[in-house]
Amino acid sequence: MAGTNPQRDAVLGGPAIILIEPQLGENIGTCARAMLNCGLTDLRLVRPRDGWPSGSAKASASGADLVLDNARLFDRTEDAIADLSHVFATTARNRGMIKRIMTPREAASEMRAQSSAGLATGVLFGPERTGLFNDDLALADTSLTVPLNPAFSSLNLAQAVLIIGYEWYQTGEVAPGRYLHTGATRPANKEELVNLFSHLEDELENSRFFSSPEKKPSMIRSIRNCFQRMDMTEQEVRTFHGIISALTGRKRSAAKE
Amino acid sequence: MAGTNPQRDAVLGGPAIILIEPQLGENIGTCARAMLNCGLTDLRLVRPRDGWPSGSAKASASGADLVLDNARLFDRTEDAIADLSHVFATTARNRGMIKRIMTPREAASEMRAQSSAGLATGVLFGPERTGLFNDDLALADTSLTVPLNPAFSSLNLAQAVLIIGYEWYQTGEVAPGRYLHTGATRPANKEELVNLFSHLEDELENSRFFSSPEKKPSMIRSIRNCFQRMDMTEQEVRTFHGIISALTGRKRSAAKE
Repeated sequence: MAGTNPQRDAVLGGPAIILIEPQLGENIGTCARAMLNCGLTDLRLVRPRDGWPSGSAKASASGADLVLDNARLFDRTEDAIADLSHVFATTARNRGMIKRIMTPREAASEMRAQSSAGLATGVLFGPERTGLFNDDLALADTSLTVPLNPAFSSLNLAQAVLIIGYEWYQTGEVAPGRYLHTGATRPANKEELVNLFSHLEDELENSRFFSSPEKKPSMIRSIRNCFQRMDMTEQEVRTFHGIISALTGRKRSAAKE
Repeated sequence: MAGTNPQRDAVLGGPAIILIEPQLGENIGTCARAMLNCGLTDLRLVRPRDGWPSGSAKASASGADLVLDNARLFDRTEDAIADLSHVFATTARNRGMIKRIMTPREAASEMRAQSSAGLATGVLFGPERTGLFNDDLALADTSLTVPLNPAFSSLNLAQAVLIIGYEWYQTGEVAPGRYLHTGATRPANKEELVNLFSHLEDELENSRFFSSPEKKPSMIRSIRNCFQRMDMTEQEVRTFHGIISALTGRKRSAAKE
């Protein structure tokens, strides 16, 4: 895409994703896709089993070619992490090492803080079958453990990358957690809403809906509360006027016949 | 599995994962794996393209057989969500519908709150190629949009399930922060809501409310979306049946006079 500048993304400071001895090109491709989903573009490969570049990686990247094209190849993990200030290692199991352990969420805050200070970070992922080697783990500052069902916690490579990247992306997200999409219309104001209430309540009165005068106020409050929760748009208020007119209108023409 | 009781799982409160017309068995399998990673076991399939059960689903589930074995098959989305109190829909694009939108993180808190109140929730996922149909989207209370790189936001099915499930799992120890106080009644389930829709839509048809056959489906979706946002209780659904009957009923007696 014309608007996507990988250099700029890298400067913005997403962590490098470092795959140690990935076995399948397909997994490298799906990792690249997950990275780009999260705005990450710095992919580093240490001794990929089937060589590099990889046609199967490209085939499975679903268009995340810029990540693959910019990927860098290394023989040694030490070289792959040489420019990084803080390295995280993903591990499913505790290896009996004495090491800081963080969740991806905590780590993402840490990565963002480092990035704000102009420092580069990275995350090590081990081979699909075995996970990280202890020697590579010993090169990391912090272990990452994803809180998941302890009875079934194994993620595939791309999914592990996605969780890390997703948490990273959320730390930069300024959008509100929830909002109402209203399209081309606008939220109704209270005058419009009260007019709708009056229309409905008049027609309900005419229809002898209210079983007793004592209960009428509380019934009206209940109905109004329902409509309040609807967060109606101006357009929808008009639709509901139309609904009430339609439901009651036929009876008028019927009565006139 | 002998020890797994789907009813009990629903009460334990993980959201149901509802796949509408999934195309590839392999994707159903990887979704099952992602679900079990996050402690989710209630999988519901609506019209899977290649039938059910599926050998390719099993082959790609990496051992999440209990999810596949307990999966339930439905012909209609309405039936798949009948017992649920709140339904989320995953959409990459905005469809011009007026609907609450939440992030997975916000939604996970909402799911946890509902679960703590003994209510079942679910998440709809559309076919791989097209995403959700508008009519299915109109059955949902809330749209879910994952905050991701806007230039490259498309996730595969299992990754979308993983993000939702992961966020659900992270809420595990957190007390509910918000919920709708419903007093002595309970939230309406989807079957009750769909019955209300049918009642209203039948009467609107009788009243010649729908100006043209072409516009009718989108008008119905708009009205359904309004009611979805109401978060109705079972009591309120009955009140609205009464409102519709009152508004249309007088016309019948008037016509008889």
